[in-house]
Amino acid sequence: MISNKTLTSFFHELCDVSARETLPRFRVGIQVDNKQDGGFDPVTQADREAEKTIRTCIEQHFPDHGIIGEEFPDVRVNAEYKWIIDPVDGTRAFVAGLPVWGTLVGLCRNNSPIAGMMFQPFTDERYICAGTGTQLHHKGQVIELTTNSDKVLSNTILMSTAPELFSTSEKRVFDKVSDRCRLTRFGTDCYAYCMLASGHIGMVIESGLQFYDIAALIPIVEQAGGVISDWNGDPITNGGRVLASANPQLHHEALTLITG
Amino acid sequence: MISNKTLTSFFHELCDVSARETLPRFRVGIQVDNKQDGGFDPVTQADREAEKTIRTCIEQHFPDHGIIGEEFPDVRVNAEYKWIIDPVDGTRAFVAGLPVWGTLVGLCRNNSPIAGMMFQPFTDERYICAGTGTQLHHKGQVIELTTNSDKVLSNTILMSTAPELFSTSEKRVFDKVSDRCRLTRFGTDCYAYCMLASGHIGMVIESGLQFYDIAALIPIVEQAGGVISDWNGDPITNGGRVLASANPQLHHEALTLITG
Repeated sequence: MISNKTLTSFFHELCDVSARETLPRFRVGIQVDNKQDGGFDPVTQADREAEKTIRTCIEQHFPDHGIIGEEFPDVRVNAEYKWIIDPVDGTRAFVAGLPVWGTLVGLCRNNSPIAGMMFQPFTDERYICAGTGTQLHHKGQVIELTTNSDKVLSNTILMSTAPELFSTSEKRVFDKVSDRCRLTRFGTDCYAYCMLASGHIGMVIESGLQFYDIAALIPIVEQAGGVISDWNGDPITNGGRVLASANPQLHHEALTLITG
Repeated sequence: MISNKTLTSFFHELCDVSARETLPRFRVGIQVDNKQDGGFDPVTQADREAEKTIRTCIEQHFPDHGIIGEEFPDVRVNAEYKWIIDPVDGTRAFVAGLPVWGTLVGLCRNNSPIAGMMFQPFTDERYICAGTGTQLHHKGQVIELTTNSDKVLSNTILMSTAPELFSTSEKRVFDKVSDRCRLTRFGTDCYAYCMLASGHIGMVIESGLQFYDIAALIPIVEQAGGVISDWNGDPITNGGRVLASANPQLHHEALTLITG
């Protein structure tokens, strides 16, 4: 087992090295010329280069561990420990200049997520779960995170990445919950789960996720007191449809609406 | 006429004093108890206290100027110079913990906006137009802002605060433009106009605005090279429906779709 301390300091190292690749490409603007010759826009470069540097760090520190990332082929998929990387989650926010995208790195043991980080380099917010508890590291402060204890759905702020991620029938299910909430906010990607872990919002509902979109966020939410599952209430093993709630009572109420 | 230098330093003073009222109330969470006794939630307090301290500064420096704000009665409305204050624009972002709300202060001369600031205290981004040009002041750097020169609507990122701000007929008009754009992003409030001024996005379309929601942003957009008008192409004199574009060609194309 890797200690909390070792993992925390390793996550900080990943933040530092990945920021060097993402931040200089954020808010740079895409050249019309580049766009027309088929693809090397800043977010694509940020994605590839950040994943490359994160993979290099993992290979140095944990050469026996597996690596699964968005941009490059899987490595040692049968290892006990596997790292799951999404170098830029929220590419739409990235291209629009909004500081609500993030670099996600999760750690699985025997395919179960046990630790993770969400790093927003422009604001330098580092949401880290290194096994036990979830902390926000920001401007030299370390804040222990706890989800909201409010159990009333009509007080709840709901977030989701985009309405167009849902099929027509999924959207109907989403709306059943959304209609009961205080406020629904789109356009948040990984940032939503960190606002949930921090106690600012009560729920996130999404669909069509890849495992690398969510693996790092599962421990962040759970270790802050939240509940995260698929739309049937089962553990998330491979992305897909996700429901995350601030507490078990809200989660149960949303599941009843979703499956009812 | 007030000099650029005087105005820039006054805007920085307003940023500093208002941050003391808004930032400590951001991400604090609302107490269920407080909510039930009818209203002193953190965003309401931030709104009132920030406007109060901004008004005090204006009275000290410019005692002859008028003041129009969201939270308190108008002062000297017939003055040549008038300050227009929206202490927390984007209250939904504020309550959800998202760092895309802002403190807006505009300056009108004979009812025309001539200067303005948008200040995001969590990220310490200060978008300032002090008469000529628009600058982003951030982490000790001053960046001269220029809107995007891309004139092709299908390359354009469109932003808007929320689909529910539009009436059914307005939404149809909005969709005509949105369908032609590369990407539409909701949930951005004042931040959208600063992303436009910075060249990251190409267009903002909104409806139902108050004058204090937009007064500060008009010079910020125009002095970065953008165009801002109502949906008929006329100057914005009192809020309402707003179209802001990165350049005249995009603006003309959107107006043709809107009025067509």
